[in-house]
Amino acid sequence: MKLQTAIDRVSLEDAIALAKQLDGKTDILEMGTSLVKDYGNLAIEKLREVLPQTSLLVDSKTIDEGAYEFSQAFRYGGDIVTAMGAASVDTLQACYDVAQKENKTMMIDLLEVSDEKIEQIKLFPDAIYALHHSVDRKDHFDAAASVESFRQKHPEIKRLAIAGGIDLRQAQLLAEQGIIEVVIVGSKIAKAENPLQAVNEFMGAVHK
Amino acid sequence: MKLQTAIDRVSLEDAIALAKQLDGKTDILEMGTSLVKDYGNLAIEKLREVLPQTSLLVDSKTIDEGAYEFSQAFRYGGDIVTAMGAASVDTLQACYDVAQKENKTMMIDLLEVSDEKIEQIKLFPDAIYALHHSVDRKDHFDAAASVESFRQKHPEIKRLAIAGGIDLRQAQLLAEQGIIEVVIVGSKIAKAENPLQAVNEFMGAVHK
Repeated sequence: MKLQTAIDRVSLEDAIALAKQLDGKTDILEMGTSLVKDYGNLAIEKLREVLPQTSLLVDSKTIDEGAYEFSQAFRYGGDIVTAMGAASVDTLQACYDVAQKENKTMMIDLLEVSDEKIEQIKLFPDAIYALHHSVDRKDHFDAAASVESFRQKHPEIKRLAIAGGIDLRQAQLLAEQGIIEVVIVGSKIAKAENPLQAVNEFMGAVHK
Repeated sequence: MKLQTAIDRVSLEDAIALAKQLDGKTDILEMGTSLVKDYGNLAIEKLREVLPQTSLLVDSKTIDEGAYEFSQAFRYGGDIVTAMGAASVDTLQACYDVAQKENKTMMIDLLEVSDEKIEQIKLFPDAIYALHHSVDRKDHFDAAASVESFRQKHPEIKRLAIAGGIDLRQAQLLAEQGIIEVVIVGSKIAKAENPLQAVNEFMGAVHK
């Protein structure tokens, strides 16, 4: 399992400083959607520069104009770019084609996507499908149970990630479960009092 | 009916020059998602400055972190901000609350949203609901017929917009039909050889 650490809702300066600290300490560094929208794609380059040892995911949340948005995010230095599972199949195909051509990776965010729609979009074997519980939703989310249920319903989807309030205990359970490829952690690392200590704890849980 | 002119996939310099030309000539100027993602929210201010007579819509396509994204887009000068109908009801509620509090407007983009989901999100009387045919989709789109069918299925939704390859003839038909509040036109104006002539033709059709 890999650890993806998401940075969101801070100034670009603070994001760069934190990314520098986390380089080599997390498997993937996520430039959160808030940073994309606040600072634009040009900011991808600035994060890329300080991450010689860690992959960079751009949480673009592309839902239309797939080829354009994916080309831009890869061009500025993203290794992995996200599209919404809620997009049309044609948009997802356009994103996937760019990712394959660039020899990079597409992550499909399954936020609010029905099982019926998942059946229609399980067409992309090299893409990572991310189970995602919205930060705006107020209901409870049991990560390991969601993964188990997803695997039973959609066994053809091999590459899985998960996001949404994952804490250290959930990360440990997911690692024991052995289904998930990427666990995504945001504020529990990025907003921790000591992010370096937090990332080391999560890396310990994820890679044991 | 109002005309919304969308600018997409150009440099910020060109977008500002075009916005200057279109100020007062179109009812609403849309900063397209590609501009938001390429240049970030700070670019909203630069468009706002050159639009003393025209409303500015920021096509944020918010699908999570509703309160943050809407607050940012309004703060930098947006009058109308978009959220995806595919978002959770909690996210849409968060966007709507910010828009109401700021005395500004939310547009809900119905791209790829099922009728079942529309039933769940028709909770926001002051929001504008935008029928939207993805630019990535290859199938045909009959605007006036889509509007007619939508009104029959969802008569409670009063404020409607439409986007997706609208040409002058379709704009005329929509004006005659009298259901739509905002017609959204992109490349037919912004990429026209003479955008000023094109916008005048569309304004003539929309306001006759």
